[in-house]
Amino acid sequence: MPNIEQLNKLIGQFGKLPGVGAKTAQKMAYFMLAQPDSAVKEFADTLLKSRDLIRCCPHCQNLTDRPLCPICADPKRQKSAICVVEKPEDVEAMERTRTFTGTYHVLHGLISPVNGIGADQLRIRELLHRVAEEEIEEVILATSPNVEGQATALYLNKLIKPFGVRVTGLALGIPVGGTLEYADSLTLTRAMENRRTFE
Amino acid sequence: MPNIEQLNKLIGQFGKLPGVGAKTAQKMAYFMLAQPDSAVKEFADTLLKSRDLIRCCPHCQNLTDRPLCPICADPKRQKSAICVVEKPEDVEAMERTRTFTGTYHVLHGLISPVNGIGADQLRIRELLHRVAEEEIEEVILATSPNVEGQATALYLNKLIKPFGVRVTGLALGIPVGGTLEYADSLTLTRAMENRRTFE
Repeated sequence: MPNIEQLNKLIGQFGKLPGVGAKTAQKMAYFMLAQPDSAVKEFADTLLKSRDLIRCCPHCQNLTDRPLCPICADPKRQKSAICVVEKPEDVEAMERTRTFTGTYHVLHGLISPVNGIGADQLRIRELLHRVAEEEIEEVILATSPNVEGQATALYLNKLIKPFGVRVTGLALGIPVGGTLEYADSLTLTRAMENRRTFE
Repeated sequence: MPNIEQLNKLIGQFGKLPGVGAKTAQKMAYFMLAQPDSAVKEFADTLLKSRDLIRCCPHCQNLTDRPLCPICADPKRQKSAICVVEKPEDVEAMERTRTFTGTYHVLHGLISPVNGIGADQLRIRELLHRVAEEEIEEVILATSPNVEGQATALYLNKLIKPFGVRVTGLALGIPVGGTLEYADSLTLTRAMENRRTFE
């Protein structure tokens, strides 16, 4: 560690970023100090302004800089279907497919007792409110197929079923372009169970 | 790219950091937006405060948050020897060895015509001023042994020699723990040329 207190603080801040270790944080701090004052100010301003302008859409909880996010505000989107995802990045991934025309609901996390994240820390209340108040026909639970994602989906299924809404999940199987040889047994089992008839 | 202008600006700022690609920048931006307001404010404040407090030592040009850096201010350091390095990180690397007791001079770059960096953009004038005004006995040119580092060292040697000061460079050879088998021919040639007598 360098012998300058303020520099160590700066390295500490960069070290908090995801995927940044001690060495990279140090590199970033030195990089920042080699920049002109205006560039550092722009970085700091962008940070503060982003945090200030970008908030959660009050309807679907996705990030947006408008009062209502573009998807919720779009009259062409099918309001009767909600695709429930873990985080804003998942909405983006889904939107890239250009096939889903319904709306989203972002949980901002998954139930994870190991990490101390309970159901009350997620945006589940807002989801149930939508299911109760709006004319919803289908809720697609699109959380990732890992332990936390599955647990969250099972929990949500139990809560939503009583409203008489169809609850579905994404298909599990071999990814397109994948090879049987390197697929894990669990994926292969699911792919076999959910095999489809050629048309 | 997400559909939020301010978010794209934030991603753009993270993308400027060294070693951060488009995907990582996006991850960092989303991470930042998931933080509480106070954490984002702390990050921005640390950035601004660091740029404000950390300046170059007027004597050796190394980064410091004091009027004179601790090495230049230390009466125990041998003021007659200057180790010339490319950047502040190099001073740290050198200090970790705990063997050099002289002072440093940080150039803040290397001569690199390809990248449009000329001698006038480095802190060479300040180095020559020290050599001319102080009682310097030895200048160790410790720039990295690559094209730019060698070119800068040769250039500095030409400038410093007329002052009648001893100019030296770091030894080139096999790194400790290295293997002959994987050493490149140039390094091996230098190691052979500079071979030493066993005592």
